[in-house]
Amino acid sequence: MEFDEVVRRRRMVRDYDPDRPVPAALVDKIVRHGLRAPSAGFSQGWSFLVLTSPADRDLYWAVTADGSNSWLTRMRKAPLLIVALSNRSAYEKRYAEPDKHWTAPLEERWPVAYWDIDAGFAALLMHLSAVDEGLGSCFFGVPVPAVDRFREAFGVPPEFTPVGTLSVGYRAPAERSPSRKRGQRPLDDVVHHGRWASAR
Amino acid sequence: MEFDEVVRRRRMVRDYDPDRPVPAALVDKIVRHGLRAPSAGFSQGWSFLVLTSPADRDLYWAVTADGSNSWLTRMRKAPLLIVALSNRSAYEKRYAEPDKHWTAPLEERWPVAYWDIDAGFAALLMHLSAVDEGLGSCFFGVPVPAVDRFREAFGVPPEFTPVGTLSVGYRAPAERSPSRKRGQRPLDDVVHHGRWASAR
Repeated sequence: MEFDEVVRRRRMVRDYDPDRPVPAALVDKIVRHGLRAPSAGFSQGWSFLVLTSPADRDLYWAVTADGSNSWLTRMRKAPLLIVALSNRSAYEKRYAEPDKHWTAPLEERWPVAYWDIDAGFAALLMHLSAVDEGLGSCFFGVPVPAVDRFREAFGVPPEFTPVGTLSVGYRAPAERSPSRKRGQRPLDDVVHHGRWASAR
Repeated sequence: MEFDEVVRRRRMVRDYDPDRPVPAALVDKIVRHGLRAPSAGFSQGWSFLVLTSPADRDLYWAVTADGSNSWLTRMRKAPLLIVALSNRSAYEKRYAEPDKHWTAPLEERWPVAYWDIDAGFAALLMHLSAVDEGLGSCFFGVPVPAVDRFREAFGVPPEFTPVGTLSVGYRAPAERSPSRKRGQRPLDDVVHHGRWASAR
């Protein structure tokens, strides 16, 4: 698909055809695209946890979801979950290497957590790749109270933080998210030319 | 360009043709693609500061760069800079609305800063759009000690944090980043199927 078309079609899809799994070759292609995301110092501190079997997906929802609601009923139909995780220690190690040799803690250099941003980049590339392959996908977070349960259930080491999960599958006919009714913020409200206050 | 081709060609470009500005229609298309990034609750808390005039770009480098080096000499040639900024307060406001009605602070819900992640999403979409248009671009941070100077120089309100800057322009023949020599992490090292420890 043309890149512009992927950008135009991209939206969060929250309902899936539960009887149509994502072919293994597409799972592979999607995660390989995630590996092509940019990262600070090419640290590539991300990891992806891929869940395809019903038992693994049930476990994911059991440890992360709270109660039952219509969002969950629809999201549980997704035949593929990919959890994108960040690893701050990979960036500390990378930036201590001779070509960087940073000695101060990373937050004295960086106003934001690039280990999380970069794992987010990987997730967005996988989300766009799903669109490109005619699939629907949704990016959502693991709630703080569930993070330890999630780590324990899947054997995730403590230095990895779940930045977000992509549900992926073939779309069911879906209503649009109520959040979309808010409308897109107008260009002139978001974009500032030259100075903050300037009109275009 | 096909989406796959954009993903394959994407890399950080750090040297530009200083005599070839980015046409205004392309600047507009790139920032409009940024507006199409996903955001938690459709909060769209990002803002973009677009710098095209030589005076504005000089000011950016004067307040953010430290000393002189070959990286800076090449990067200064970029005819377009887009600073992507995040705004945590937009998320606090959004999640206090009736359909969400969260009362706890966001960090008790979210293990990562989605206001930063989402501004990063917008930056990645603009970076990919530049590739799609035959341009080169590089994403890099504003160092912590420069953030206040940067805000003051461009009249940026304190609630906005620069998540990163995209330099954009037509590519000069460039050497590849030395970080690339590290090679891409192997798939099996990044991707975990079903459980963390599982081999594929």
